[in-house]
Amino acid sequence: MKDRGVLTVVSGFAGSGKGTIMKELLSRYDNYALSISATTRAPRPGEEHGKHYFFVGREEFEEMIRKDELLEYARYVENYYGTPRKYVEEMLGSGKDVILEIETQGALLVREKLPDTLLLFISPPSVQEIYNRLKKRGTETEENIRQRMTRAVTEAELAEQYDYLIINDDLEECIKQVHETIQAAHFRMDRSMEQLKKLQSEFAQYIKQ
Amino acid sequence: MKDRGVLTVVSGFAGSGKGTIMKELLSRYDNYALSISATTRAPRPGEEHGKHYFFVGREEFEEMIRKDELLEYARYVENYYGTPRKYVEEMLGSGKDVILEIETQGALLVREKLPDTLLLFISPPSVQEIYNRLKKRGTETEENIRQRMTRAVTEAELAEQYDYLIINDDLEECIKQVHETIQAAHFRMDRSMEQLKKLQSEFAQYIKQ
Repeated sequence: MKDRGVLTVVSGFAGSGKGTIMKELLSRYDNYALSISATTRAPRPGEEHGKHYFFVGREEFEEMIRKDELLEYARYVENYYGTPRKYVEEMLGSGKDVILEIETQGALLVREKLPDTLLLFISPPSVQEIYNRLKKRGTETEENIRQRMTRAVTEAELAEQYDYLIINDDLEECIKQVHETIQAAHFRMDRSMEQLKKLQSEFAQYIKQ
Repeated sequence: MKDRGVLTVVSGFAGSGKGTIMKELLSRYDNYALSISATTRAPRPGEEHGKHYFFVGREEFEEMIRKDELLEYARYVENYYGTPRKYVEEMLGSGKDVILEIETQGALLVREKLPDTLLLFISPPSVQEIYNRLKKRGTETEENIRQRMTRAVTEAELAEQYDYLIINDDLEECIKQVHETIQAAHFRMDRSMEQLKKLQSEFAQYIKQ
């Protein structure tokens, strides 16, 4: 029987490179799956239902909220975004390590519902480096950057509640570290109690002989 | 500045292969160091002071106990065995990941003194397999094996307090898993708070500008 997968939430400051890291994990290893969000916003050209998002109507989304079918959700501008529990559970059950890339507040909500969720925070080595990376994109105005930085202050506070902080100084190193950290979680004692109990009862059997 | 090393206690049932795993980790990676025990027993031929053991007199050992210079100690038959804190601290300070191979009771004592110690328990996949491996050594009588099994019952109970359980089914897989688990510990949030606080204060600086 395949071991149940590990659910990992990855968050990080703008410019942390977390998008690239996720992409690399998915292409290098076959044990990972990305969670798919549900949203009420309209599909953009090229976006597929069940691949990029689950596109649902507002009523359907609000029904999912009422039925506690979402691990977390938030409203941006006019639209809802959330993480359907069912899809995540199916992937975990099939042995996939599911990665959820969401913000800190959502991450903490997910862990309330599924306490063995691994919370991983990724950061560039310094705020100067965050600034440089955002600047280098060429698409961000100074005002944009300031807004992102202001939001990062809250994220940096909530990051204290995460399990791991991984600094993205060298991309290759960072990919390796994220992979190792997720893989290590497979062996946590809280996930292994069943195995240990089995050994305990086998010992008891042996001693009785 | 080099990151402080991770202190890992590795325990496991007789036949778990933990000795082989430690040897492989030390020969494959240069970040590991084994802790060296102090003992009051006489050196055997070929054993060197400061390499295999720190050989000390009984009075000296008891003085170390009184001065709280041991992370744990135990008495077997006529002799003391213990883990000098100073050597472990020096190795950790130089950035080495220190591995301590001791029994469960000692392991829990170490974690009381150094709460960020990682406790790793290694087991063969089944009690039948433990029996087979001990039998295969050819040096163990049935009575010996029974004694080891009886001791394993207590160990299996104390193992519940460990952080990780790693099953040694395939040696290569197991070496990799132990390595990944120890490396992941470098990024635990309790070890990274200083780095996070630094980022938080850099953000505060940036926002004030």
